Order: sequence, then structure tokens, then C-alpha cells
Amino acid sequence: MSEGERRIAGYDVVARDGNGAVTSDRRLLRGARSRQTVLRHAVDLASLDGLAGLSLGRLAGDLGISKSGVQTLFGSKENLQTAAVACAREVFDDEVVRPARSAPRGAARLRALTESWIEYARAPLFPGGCFWAANLADFDSRPGPVRDALFRCQRDWRALLAAELRHASDSGEIAELDPDLTAFQLDAVLIAANTALRLGDEEGEEVVGRVRRVREAFLAPPR
Amino acid sequence: MSEGERRIAGYDVVARDGNGAVTSDRRLLRGARSRQTVLRHAVDLASLDGLAGLSLGRLAGDLGISKSGVQTLFGSKENLQTAAVACAREVFDDEVVRPARSAPRGAARLRALTESWIEYARAPLFPGGCFWAANLADFDSRPGPVRDALFRCQRDWRALLAAELRHASDSGEIAELDPDLTAFQLDAVLIAANTALRLGDEEGEEVVGRVRRVREAFLAPPR
Repeated sequence: MSEGERRIAGYDVVARDGNGAVTSDRRLLRGARSRQTVLRHAVDLASLDGLAGLSLGRLAGDLGISKSGVQTLFGSKENLQTAAVACAREVFDDEVVRPARSAPRGAARLRALTESWIEYARAPLFPGGCFWAANLADFDSRPGPVRDALFRCQRDWRALLAAELRHASDSGEIAELDPDLTAFQLDAVLIAANTALRLGDEEGEEVVGRVRRVREAFLAPPR
Repeated sequence: MSEGERRIAGYDVVARDGNGAVTSDRRLLRGARSRQTVLRHAVDLASLDGLAGLSLGRLAGDLGISKSGVQTLFGSKENLQTAAVACAREVFDDEVVRPARSAPRGAARLRALTESWIEYARAPLFPGGCFWAANLADFDSRPGPVRDALFRCQRDWRALLAAELRHASDSGEIAELDPDLTAFQLDAVLIAANTALRLGDEEGEEVVGRVRRVREAFLAPPR
């Protein structure tokens, strides 16, 4: 059993029929489960080797299912790639974004978001580290729906950071700053930390320390 | 004639014999020229599709030479990859690093370095944009000489930025700052700008504006 399959075991897979209602129809459920299994493995592979390197045949081989079965589930490679981005996004939201909601809005939530991001990059959800760092650089030169989906995720993540910075700044919790510019800077150093973490513990931890210093400088209370 | 070959035409290719002396021996010269032609094309391809995707056969096909000829020049794929990193580094030094040396040390040279970097990312020397941005994310999970060579380039570039920041800070030209931490932040936003520039003019120019604002904030004179 592949790593992808083992990891999917812990997920609740819910199938919906054409009207969006949860269904227990066995065939539909099986289809949804296969789709989810294939997607989760596709995401793992893409975090290592990039979405461009995904192949329906390789996925089928890894998971011991027929290539025509994978083709039936996704149609084209491009559909598989955009579905993999959506799947990675869901995992990211579950592991990084949602847990931070328990922190109060503003500086505390920004800290929670960046700390869970660092955890995500350190003990990666995806074996190759940040799914977006691995794929944005690959797809930036390839216009199309896959690139659009990847960049939408990046924009949403920066907007999330900016919203907490704006909240902290507007409420006087931190010194005045430009929330969008600061979110852009924080996102850039997080991506740099992800790269450094792939290199090994020593280099990675040094860079994580830098990210925290950058963040805390932005979160300093007004003088 | 491929893009790679056309672009190499403007380069001076100098062959050296075993003692490092410039030679005019025709066979050696031809060998050096082929090596340089293949390498420059390899760098272009790797900036688009990554070093991992390089193949001796593809290069031979693109350039209309035999695969065994390419094999004789480089031996293994790994040798070709590390040679491609060294070639990209030379082009980068010629186009980005050396021109900035005419600016006085400190803030002016830091501006010159980052501006020539932005030019490099905007009208790219390499068709896929920054060679390192395209490959660091791919190779961060793959230990070995190629990864080491890529990261050595990144470390040297950050050290170059840090040296000018240190000079500006020590001389009182700018407010006191941590040169290494600041260089890390500048490098991170430059990489983010490179990604945005691949997306198109509007997005790219907005991000270039942000990079300049970040830089100028660091270069503000002491109060």
C-alpha cells in the first residue's frame, strides 16, 4: 500500500449525489473514495516532483488501479492537476487555517497562522514540503487553469494574513502599517523558510528564527 | 537553429588547455564551444522546466548533435546539471552583479543590485525567469551536488546584499539594521517578484513596486 493510500485512510470521505445530498449509494461512495485516494497521492507526488510531472499512468501504477479507471475519474491530466490543487487547498485549510481560528483576531491570530504554517513546512503534510512553493515556480510560466488555481490559493493566503494585520493595526494593537505590503513580505519569508527547511534542520531552524523576528518586528505595539 | 544556439552566438567562448592557458587549438576550441552551446541551451530549458527535466537526448535533439556527443562532453546527467548551474551563475554575475560595481558601495550599490535583479527577472536572461527560483524549489528535497551548487549561489547572492547593507549601516548612511536578516528579507521579496512577473505585466509591476517600497524602507537614512 502506498504512502498516499495509507494517509487517506484517516480522512472522512463523503460522497454527494447530483443534488449535493450526502449519499450512501455504494457505487457513488466507492467512486468518491477512489477519487480522493488518487487525488491525495497526486498531491504528495506533486509536492515532490511538481504537478507538471503527474501522469495518469504513474498514479494508476502506484495505487494498483487501472489507467482507464483513473482516466474515467478525471478525464484529462489538466483536470487531475486542478483537482489536485483543490485537494491540497482543503488539506491546507484544515491543518493551517482552521486551527488558527481559535486565537483572537489580530496579532494573536497572525501568530497562530504563521506558526501553523511553519509546522506545516517543518513536518510537512506533503512529503516535498509546501505544495505551492513546489508548484508556483513551475507553473508561473504556464498560463491556464492550473496556474490560475495555484495563484488563487496564494492570493487568498496573503489576503488572510493581511486581514489579521489590518485588524491589529486598526484596533491600535500594533503600530500602523500597510497590511497588504506586510502580508506580501511575510508570505515571501515563509516561502524562503520552506526552502531552507528542506535543506536540513540546522539551516531550517535558523531561517525559522529569522521569520519569527521579521513577524515580531511587524507586530510590535505602537510606541 | 534553436533559441539557445542563437543566444550563444553573442558570447565569447574561450578554450583553455590543461594548464589553463587560452588556446587556439581548433579541436579544443570546438569542444569548448559545443560545451558552451549545450550548456546555455540546458540553462534555458532548466529555467522553464527545471534541471530535473534535463535530458542528454533532448538537448542533443534540440541542437542537432548526437546524443553520444553530448555524453562525451558531460559524462553524466548530474555533471550536466552542475555545469548548467555554473553557467547560469556566470551569466547572472555578468548581467546582474558586475554592472552594479560601478555604483558607490552601500545604499547606491544595493539599489543597483536589486534594480538589475528586477531587470533580470522582468526581461529574463533565461526564458523561464529566475533560474534559481525555478530550480531551488525543485531541488530542495534532493540532496546532492546539484542542490549544493544551487544553494551556494543563493548564499553568495544574499551575502552580497548583506555586505552592502552592512557598509551602509556601519557608515551611518542608513539606520542601524541586521544586515543578514535584511538581506534574507530582500532576497525573499525578489523571489516573490520573479514569480509575479511571470504572471503578466500588471501583477508583476505591482509587485515590483512593493519590492522597491520594502527596499527603500530599509535604506531610509537614520533619524
